[in-house]
This record gives sequence, C-alpha cells and structure tokens, in this order.
Amino acid sequence: MQITGADVYDVRFPTSRSAAGSDAMNRDPDYSLAYVVLHTDHPLGLAGHGFTFTIGRGNELCAEGIRSYARLVIGRKVESLTRNLGAFAQSLTNESQMRWLGPEKGVVHLAAAAVINAVWDLYAKCEGKPLWKLLADMDPVELVRAADFRYVTDFLTEAEAIERLERGRFGRTQREREMVRDGYPAYTTSAGWYGYDDEQIRMLVRDGIRAGWTHFKIKVGGDPAVDRRRVALVRKEIGPTHVLMLDANQVWGVDDAVRCIRDLAEFDPWWMEEPTSPDDVLGYAAIARQVAPIPLAAGEHCHNRVMFKQLFQANAIGFCQLDACRLGGVNEVLTVMLMADKAGIPVCPHAGGVGLPEYVQHLALLDYISVSGSLRGRTLEYVDHLHEHFVHPAVVTGGRYQVPAAPGYSADLYPSALAAYQYPDGEAWSGSKDPSRDGRSGPTLE
Amino acid sequence: MQITGADVYDVRFPTSRSAAGSDAMNRDPDYSLAYVVLHTDHPLGLAGHGFTFTIGRGNELCAEGIRSYARLVIGRKVESLTRNLGAFAQSLTNESQMRWLGPEKGVVHLAAAAVINAVWDLYAKCEGKPLWKLLADMDPVELVRAADFRYVTDFLTEAEAIERLERGRFGRTQREREMVRDGYPAYTTSAGWYGYDDEQIRMLVRDGIRAGWTHFKIKVGGDPAVDRRRVALVRKEIGPTHVLMLDANQVWGVDDAVRCIRDLAEFDPWWMEEPTSPDDVLGYAAIARQVAPIPLAAGEHCHNRVMFKQLFQANAIGFCQLDACRLGGVNEVLTVMLMADKAGIPVCPHAGGVGLPEYVQHLALLDYISVSGSLRGRTLEYVDHLHEHFVHPAVVTGGRYQVPAAPGYSADLYPSALAAYQYPDGEAWSGSKDPSRDGRSGPTLE
Repeated sequence: MQITGADVYDVRFPTSRSAAGSDAMNRDPDYSLAYVVLHTDHPLGLAGHGFTFTIGRGNELCAEGIRSYARLVIGRKVESLTRNLGAFAQSLTNESQMRWLGPEKGVVHLAAAAVINAVWDLYAKCEGKPLWKLLADMDPVELVRAADFRYVTDFLTEAEAIERLERGRFGRTQREREMVRDGYPAYTTSAGWYGYDDEQIRMLVRDGIRAGWTHFKIKVGGDPAVDRRRVALVRKEIGPTHVLMLDANQVWGVDDAVRCIRDLAEFDPWWMEEPTSPDDVLGYAAIARQVAPIPLAAGEHCHNRVMFKQLFQANAIGFCQLDACRLGGVNEVLTVMLMADKAGIPVCPHAGGVGLPEYVQHLALLDYISVSGSLRGRTLEYVDHLHEHFVHPAVVTGGRYQVPAAPGYSADLYPSALAAYQYPDGEAWSGSKDPSRDGRSGPTLE
Repeated sequence: MQITGADVYDVRFPTSRSAAGSDAMNRDPDYSLAYVVLHTDHPLGLAGHGFTFTIGRGNELCAEGIRSYARLVIGRKVESLTRNLGAFAQSLTNESQMRWLGPEKGVVHLAAAAVINAVWDLYAKCEGKPLWKLLADMDPVELVRAADFRYVTDFLTEAEAIERLERGRFGRTQREREMVRDGYPAYTTSAGWYGYDDEQIRMLVRDGIRAGWTHFKIKVGGDPAVDRRRVALVRKEIGPTHVLMLDANQVWGVDDAVRCIRDLAEFDPWWMEEPTSPDDVLGYAAIARQVAPIPLAAGEHCHNRVMFKQLFQANAIGFCQLDACRLGGVNEVLTVMLMADKAGIPVCPHAGGVGLPEYVQHLALLDYISVSGSLRGRTLEYVDHLHEHFVHPAVVTGGRYQVPAAPGYSADLYPSALAAYQYPDGEAWSGSKDPSRDGRSGPTLE
C-alpha cells in the first residue's frame, strides 16, 4: 500500500462570536484545525486523517507547513513508515533544513504533528483497531522504539523505559476491561470560559453537576477582584467535595503569579494551570516552591520533550498536560508519558480545543492501561462544543469518556464540515461582514 | 508618512553546493532570507527593509508569516509605530490568535522579527542615521521603553535597567569615537565548516592569519577521532596565542557532551558552543558545571528573552550569542542585552548566516557604546560569503568590523539579487536539475 497524495484544509470555526474557548490571554479564539488527509491506493480507499489545533489567524501557516511535510511521505509505501515509526517521525522533525525553523517547536512542530498523527491514524485503520488499542497491544520494545529519546537520556534511557513498561504489564487486561466498562474520568472546562458572565457560569456549573460532573475548571488571570468573585461563586456552587481547577493561561510574571495564587488559595484549587510563560522552567519551579502545596499544571504550550524533561527535573509541575498536537505526534507523546511515569507526575492531557478530546481519549487510555497503571490524580479535560463535526466524536457520559471503538485516531471530520468551515471560502465565513472576525483584520496586502 | 504596502520575497542562495555553512547538525544548508520591503508614501520613496534568516526548505513558511504580520502594519502611519516601538513590537508578538503558534518562538517569531526589523530600518532611514547610531542616541528611558520586559522582571526590572544605563553613560562619546576609528573586534567561522576537508581548513586558517584574524571557530560534533584530528590541526596552525572556539551545533545529549568536551579540553577552547538542545537550560547548566572552566556559548537557537533569562539565572552560559532574527527584532535584542549586562555575560551575537553580519554589527556597537561599555570577552562572528548582494555590506578589515555609515539597518539587498535568487523562479534555481538541491525534495503534492 502506498501513500498517493494529500489534501490539506484550513478549517476554522467562528467560536469567538460566542466567547466559547476564551481565556485571559486568548480572548477571541476561533477554534481551528490545519487538517490533512493522506490518500492511499488501498482498495477500500483507506485514508489517514490528522490535524493540528490553532485558534484562528496563522492556521494558514500550519496548513502550509503540512504541505511541506506531506511531500516527504507522498509516494512512500505505508509499510516503510510503520515498520519503524520512530525513524519516520524523526525524518520529519529532523528534516535537515526545516529543522532550523524550530527545532521541534512552533509552526513546524505543529505541522509535523498533523502528518505524523495522520500516519498513526492510517496505521490503526489498517490494523482495524482504535489507536489506544493498537498502542496497548504493542510490546514495551515496540513502544519505546516509536518514542524519541534524543536529548532526554540523562533523565530516562530506553532500557529503563522498557524495564518500567515490563514491570507495569501486570493487570493490563483487567485495566482494559475496566475502561471499556466504566470509561475514563473527565473534567469540564466548558462552564468557566473567561468571556462568560457570572450568571452564565452559575447556570453552567449547575447544569454540569446535574450531568454528573465532579471536576470543574475556571479561567482566571483578569482583575484580581473579579477573579476572586468568580472563583468564590464556583466554589460555593460546587461545594467543598467537588474539585475546582484554576487556569491563568500565562498572563502573570513570576512574582505576580505568586501573589495572585496565594490570594486564591482559600478556595482550595486542585491545581493552578499556566501561571506564567510556558518557557519558564525556572519560573515555574520558583512559583511552585512559593505556593506549595498547590501544585502547578502545564502542557498545552510545552513544545517538546526537552521542556517536559526539565519541568520534571525541577519539580516544577504536579500535573502533566501534554498536548497531542503541540508535541510532535504520538511518538513524542509516548516519550513524555514515559518520563511523567518515572517522575511520578499524573498525565492529564490538554483537550481545550476542537478535535483534542477526540485525540487525547486514546492517549489517556494508553497511559492507564500500559504506562502508569494508575488513575490517581488523573482526569481528562473535556469541552462540549464542535463534536458534531466528527465522524466518531468523543462521548462523555456521567463525567466519563466512553472508550472509542472505531478503528483509527478519531480524527475524521465529515466532508460537509470540511467544506462549510474551510477558510476563507466556506459558508461559515463567506457571509461574514465583520473584518475583525474573519481572520483578516487590517488592510490586505497591496 | 504612511506604510502603503509590502513586498515579500523568498530568497535562497544554493550554498549547500559548496558546503559553505555546513556543520554537524546542518549538513546541507542553503542560506536563505524571508525578506520584506515596507513601502511608504514618502516623497523620496523611503522603504523599510527587513528579513529573517533560514537555511532553505521552510523559508516559504516564514515568507507567509511575514505576509500575515505585514497586514497589521500596512495602512498605519509610520509615526504611530515609532512613537512607541515597544508597544508596536508587542502588537505583533502578542497578536491574539497568532500567539498560539508560538508564543514567541519558531516561524511566527522569525516572521515577526523581519517586520519589526524593517520598521526599525525605516525609522533609522527617516532619521538619517545608521541603526546603531539611532540607538546610541536614545536616552535610557527610550531604550528601555522599546524593550519587552514581560516575564523577565523577576531578573531585571525596567527601573533597574534604566539605572544601569544611566550609570553606564560616562565615556559614551569616547567609545563611539574609538569604534569609528578602530572598528569592532571579530572572529571568523569561515575556515572551519564541517564539510571542508583537512587540507581546505589548513589553507583557510593560514589565509586567515595572513588577513589579520586572531580568533577562529571550527565545527565539531562528528566522529570523536575526526573532531580531535581537526581541532589539533587548527590549534597547531594558529599556535597557542590565537584563540580557538568550538561549535557542536546541538548534536550531543547531556552526558555525551560532557565526555566529548573533556576529550577536546587539551586544545584549550575559548568557548564550547551549542553542545546540546537549545531548549535544555538545565542540561546546559549540568554540562557547564562538569566541563568548567570551559565556558558554554549559545544563542542562535535561543528563541526568546525567557530562555536567555533562565540561562543567566542558571549560570549555564559564559557567552550570549543572541540572534537578530531568532529574537523578536531589535526590541527583544535590547531586553536580552540588558539582562546579559546585569548577568556579567559578554554579548557576542550570532552571525553565521547571510545578512546576519550586516545586522549584528549595529547591535554589537550598541552593546559597547551604550550598554556594557566593555570589549572584554567580546568578539563578533563573521562569515565571508554573500556580502556582494547587499547595498551596504558589512566590511571587515584586519579582523575588525568597520562601523557602518549608511542610514538604516544595512538590510537592503540589490533588486538584481532579489530577482536572481528568488525561489523557485530566480535564475539561480531555474537551471537546477537536482531535486535534492532545489528545496522540493520528494514527490510534489498530487
């Protein structure tokens, strides 16, 4: 079987119109996907679907980056890629000239992730398994071979990772059965977006409790008095036994973060997410020391395994929120998951974006079944919009993700969605009269 | 005066054909520029020129990113940008949706730098001064206002930066006169590219000594025995009094780096550049402790001020090789330069690329005249090819950069060069028959 071509789409959903997804840093996100379909000559028309997530303007750069990387896989035999998925992923992330634009960060890494994830999707479809099951059925040597250990062996070697996975195999079948029966525990971010007013938040939290949610995340990082009022409101609604997480989305400097987190400590947050710049490992460590015992959480902007390695080494975070698109695909996710296990830090993947819930349900299942074997401190983010565009949407019932059964990585969008939300020509955008909403604010090039 | 439009060019020089610029990580670079001209309605046709540097494939992504940012300045009054250059730069680097693609790293930051630098070029041309002089004539409050202090005030506050600049003003006029008379000290990287054989290196080092060079950098990071042979060769040629720097371009892991650097210590390197991943602040610190007293050098891949802050805080580097394009333009360079001064770390900007010598000569002059007031431990990189394409090329005589006199940031390329090296249609590329050389390796999209 050969990869015969690639279609690349710039897909944007006008979410900024409702403030769904808004936070103190990102006040007007239009949830977007730079999306790729890798076509094959398979008689049933099997295709690999993959994407990277962005929040609107700039999505065109990721789409362009996907085109650049797609050239490296078109014409290749699928078996030549899946035979050694580690080598394949590195052939993209270490492409000798593209590497300069990262390395392994920003647009090129986001774009490489889309293509790498599309190949994993194709591989899982070929094997007739959902991705989590494909991964759970791999033996430790295969899993480690797919991961990228460059620059992290001072923290975790391949040999030690294999040994840890071997030791963790006991109970695997039971855990898999448990997941299929019970699902994976989740939390909701959808009640506490930054752009929502108090009444809306109160109503959504009440709805959430009725729907079975026990863990709620709320956005902070604005005026400290407003933050206090909103956090107090949510704590009052959910009571002392339900769990509350806070997210500042990088708005503070190190000293401000310490001050603001201490000011919110009385509301007993379970974690404090993204208090400052995602690049500031030493800053995170300094904040963590000063606000203990409140643990910090980070990951949606941790751009590669080297950053996570340092966050673990510096005891800077208490929760690892790895991102399926920010990291270089399933391969680098594996590396980070293995390091988190060694560090004893629970993995709670980031899913605050379109398509991310569909992706990360597979990753969380892998973590429980094959890597950490634990649910302690683990809960998977869920946002409740835009799932209707996916052929196999993530399903959450009673606050738990139901285990996906369809072969692949759950990335397939309906062709009608690809058409309607294609930017700038899809019907969702063509009627737009507001220049600040159509992603081309400001005058065009002359 | 208004910015009326922007022309964006994807300019690539086929340097991989001669191995000029090659190193252990980047074996086939085609030195490239994503280049922008900001046009104005000035009666003399004043235009701002700026660029970002890459090594070939992927340059199209930076060009596309420049188009995205250029939309934000077209139609603006030049005075509305130059009135507060700090706010202007941040309006690009913090654009509410583009920010997701970094923040402040990778393609979007490289692209923002090109546009920001073009505005500085335009501003200097309007004032009729070379950029270094424009900056040297600014008072401390103006300089600090142009810099970006977000996320770094735990290391250096605006107030302390102003105070340090005030104290350093003594002797400024004298230093400026000294520079105009003597030039700024430089070192050469052009004798020791990775793809050169022993005989070529020996010949180039001898030529270099005759031309007045006293500082030589050589690429390492391949087979350890070959590294030893080449480093020994250069040390023998230059003798014990000339200075030798080594550069591994990120090829090692932390433990390998320690081993390899110790193995080369007997050749008395002045610095060891890029031993490992540029993201690994803690790795740098660990290596530095173990190979002391050999200092580490880094910067060409340090993507923003937060990374440099940490390298300073962790005592990880002995030389700060900030990059005029990797950082978000002159503004962020200022922040890093001010922090380096506080840390007591000499700034030796990266210039191993086309156009970088033209840019960084201005920055090194500013460092000496207005910021550090010192030449101790300072030497500015120089590579000797591709200068002929610039209207005001950097000039090095007797191992010293001569002070640029033309108004602006020395970025103007000749229109003939823009045409001949435009990718893929310029004549330098159109004759190319080798698909691995034309930047479109692999099959094209179907």
